[in-house]
Amino acid sequence: MDLIPSELIKKKRDKGVLSGEEIRFLISSYSEGKIPDYQMSAWLMAALLNGMNGDETHALTQAMLHSGDVLDFSHLPVKKVDKHSTGGVGDKTSLILAPIVAAAGLAVPMISGRGLGHTGGTLDKLESIPGFVTRLPEEKFKAMVAKFGLCFMGQTDRICPADKKLYALRDVTATIESIPLICASIMSKKLAEGIDALVLDVKFGSGAFMKNLNDAENLAKRLISIGELGGKKTRALLTNMEQPLGAFVGNSLEVEECLAILKNERSPEWEDTRELSLELAAHMLELGGAARSRDEGRAAAEALIAGGKALAKFEEVCAAHGGDLSKLPKPTREQKIEAPREGFIRSYNNEQIGIASLSLGAGRLKAEDQIDPVAGLKIHKKIGERIARGETLFTLYGSAVTDFAPATKRLLGAVAISPERPPAVPLIAKVL
Amino acid sequence: MDLIPSELIKKKRDKGVLSGEEIRFLISSYSEGKIPDYQMSAWLMAALLNGMNGDETHALTQAMLHSGDVLDFSHLPVKKVDKHSTGGVGDKTSLILAPIVAAAGLAVPMISGRGLGHTGGTLDKLESIPGFVTRLPEEKFKAMVAKFGLCFMGQTDRICPADKKLYALRDVTATIESIPLICASIMSKKLAEGIDALVLDVKFGSGAFMKNLNDAENLAKRLISIGELGGKKTRALLTNMEQPLGAFVGNSLEVEECLAILKNERSPEWEDTRELSLELAAHMLELGGAARSRDEGRAAAEALIAGGKALAKFEEVCAAHGGDLSKLPKPTREQKIEAPREGFIRSYNNEQIGIASLSLGAGRLKAEDQIDPVAGLKIHKKIGERIARGETLFTLYGSAVTDFAPATKRLLGAVAISPERPPAVPLIAKVL
Repeated sequence: MDLIPSELIKKKRDKGVLSGEEIRFLISSYSEGKIPDYQMSAWLMAALLNGMNGDETHALTQAMLHSGDVLDFSHLPVKKVDKHSTGGVGDKTSLILAPIVAAAGLAVPMISGRGLGHTGGTLDKLESIPGFVTRLPEEKFKAMVAKFGLCFMGQTDRICPADKKLYALRDVTATIESIPLICASIMSKKLAEGIDALVLDVKFGSGAFMKNLNDAENLAKRLISIGELGGKKTRALLTNMEQPLGAFVGNSLEVEECLAILKNERSPEWEDTRELSLELAAHMLELGGAARSRDEGRAAAEALIAGGKALAKFEEVCAAHGGDLSKLPKPTREQKIEAPREGFIRSYNNEQIGIASLSLGAGRLKAEDQIDPVAGLKIHKKIGERIARGETLFTLYGSAVTDFAPATKRLLGAVAISPERPPAVPLIAKVL
Repeated sequence: MDLIPSELIKKKRDKGVLSGEEIRFLISSYSEGKIPDYQMSAWLMAALLNGMNGDETHALTQAMLHSGDVLDFSHLPVKKVDKHSTGGVGDKTSLILAPIVAAAGLAVPMISGRGLGHTGGTLDKLESIPGFVTRLPEEKFKAMVAKFGLCFMGQTDRICPADKKLYALRDVTATIESIPLICASIMSKKLAEGIDALVLDVKFGSGAFMKNLNDAENLAKRLISIGELGGKKTRALLTNMEQPLGAFVGNSLEVEECLAILKNERSPEWEDTRELSLELAAHMLELGGAARSRDEGRAAAEALIAGGKALAKFEEVCAAHGGDLSKLPKPTREQKIEAPREGFIRSYNNEQIGIASLSLGAGRLKAEDQIDPVAGLKIHKKIGERIARGETLFTLYGSAVTDFAPATKRLLGAVAISPERPPAVPLIAKVL
């Protein structure tokens, strides 16, 4: 069949549905440079405005997946499982759940990203551990997953190159914000990991891409559909992102929080991080066949923490990555921000908190920015907690060079304190 | 003000309205190569799908107009008027009305196009006259308009270069079919002629881009609005395009039809061409101030034909273009197509008739195709006329090399004959 790019643009422009063959042609021709950027961007805009159905999104995911290497772990005797989060400030569950699941005997081939916008990236957090290397050849990644049941790696040029090329084009043509395109981008990279099952953490709320539960549920359903059509067991937890997860935002600070949880240290300040990590791990254990139910998975996850096995796994894997946890750097300066009035914490503006953290040096405002591994902040109170006037609301952390002033100003505007206690919001709203 | 291309794409994607400044920035930056094709095509698709209002379309027209030379005829003591048709098979009125209007003392600086798709172009028709040159330097064009009140010229690289670049991009990104973009493209080129007034022939019906009167009226209103905002008197005739205009389709054949009308030869076969040409000329004369009303303009136009002045003007201008009307080539072969049954002509498929004409050699299927100036066809009956079985329906014309077979097959499928007489349709439905 002879396909004509402009006819495929026209078809989507006129609200048509592209066949699998048409989508494969579009992606493979674009990857090979046979379809120019200017035709692809017109098609992307038409797809954003007119939508894509489930079959089209599945076909797009598969076409991007097969544009590069698909890892093969079928020789391993255990199930391979992973988790993907749609992202939020302070979200650090990967560092906790991955060692739990690996300690339970499953394999976690975790390919992660760097910080995007105001949210941090798993790789940036791990790299705050001195010596920790995430840029690995695929063979090394595969060997570590086989040996330890866990390895952390960044995207490579060989995995989903079509997604990489397409994402760069979307970034400059205002075509990022399309649910089907987002789904295909997420799922193609996850399916390339060679996993058997995937647990999705789909965030909703003011601090998430999806502002309400309904939109998050729609996104989750689409992601699950693509995963299942791709032959993977896929489950989604819809979780609340009205406030940062846990106490700390920043790279080495978040690693410290994770280590505390792996050491079974309890605190109301990071109880949400612990709870979400354990729940996600429980579902991963169930989907991977290491537990017969989520309840059994939850019990196993708690036992692996209590018995120190999850911590031992994390230490083992860190060492294999070249990381020295004993040398985790600590902030040399800090500054407290006090509550300007008494009352109940009504809401946080996560985006502003994320940007404050970036401005301290915890992330990149521009691609060429250097990260300060110890920079970041602590949120002392959760939504609904009472705070007295003058009590500490935030602590800012940094090093000799840190300028605390811009973050201080920003954070004072990022919290609302009200005289009445706001209604409580559950952390996990729904499991799909 | 610092404008960011991706923000302007986003604005249109989200159904926003761009300011004049934003549109000028978009067009001038694109012209200068500062905005790449891939951003422009995403913006074009967003504009096509989300629309543009009158102010945006006016701003786009003006931005394209001022991307190149705007001809200045303000030193001429007479008004400059032109006509634009949205195009149809057999539409040849320019060759009749232009010499009429010039003979009446107004100036007609006519910049025309070549054949597009299945419809012929004014330049192709004129170039069937041996020696006729349409590729002129602007100075020569201006001198001829000043001397004769009429000159025909093709688009140059210096007139509306932004439209030229944009049109080429639209052509390969399925973004042609946008009413605001079409309006801006048409009007920027017409306004560049330095005219005082413009009469639009907006076609509707199965053979036109606008399939019904309502859509044609909307298009006409938008075109008029852009013209008036650009400071030009603008009027539109909504005219029927259910069947080819006149008797002949093809280049030298259409010139012959025009010469017959200019010689005041009457025939029911080309009465529609004559009528429409005279009406358009009447409105041009009124808008240009050479007549106090359309009625007076109509009478003047008829008199200029009856007295031979329009013909003399056409002959004079042809000679000035290097054309020798006495050597107009004639077909050397012809073939008749007979009616397969008796009845009334119910409808024609203009697109198929246009393609049949192209396939005989009257136009280009590909840009590099050679035109056979004598190729074409005659339509013997108008819609509503009775035809007997075996009576001639079409005559095909060509030269030694012409293959009549494909056109014959196509034409037999391009006419519907029914036992009942269809209702009559007026040629000019409305004047706006």
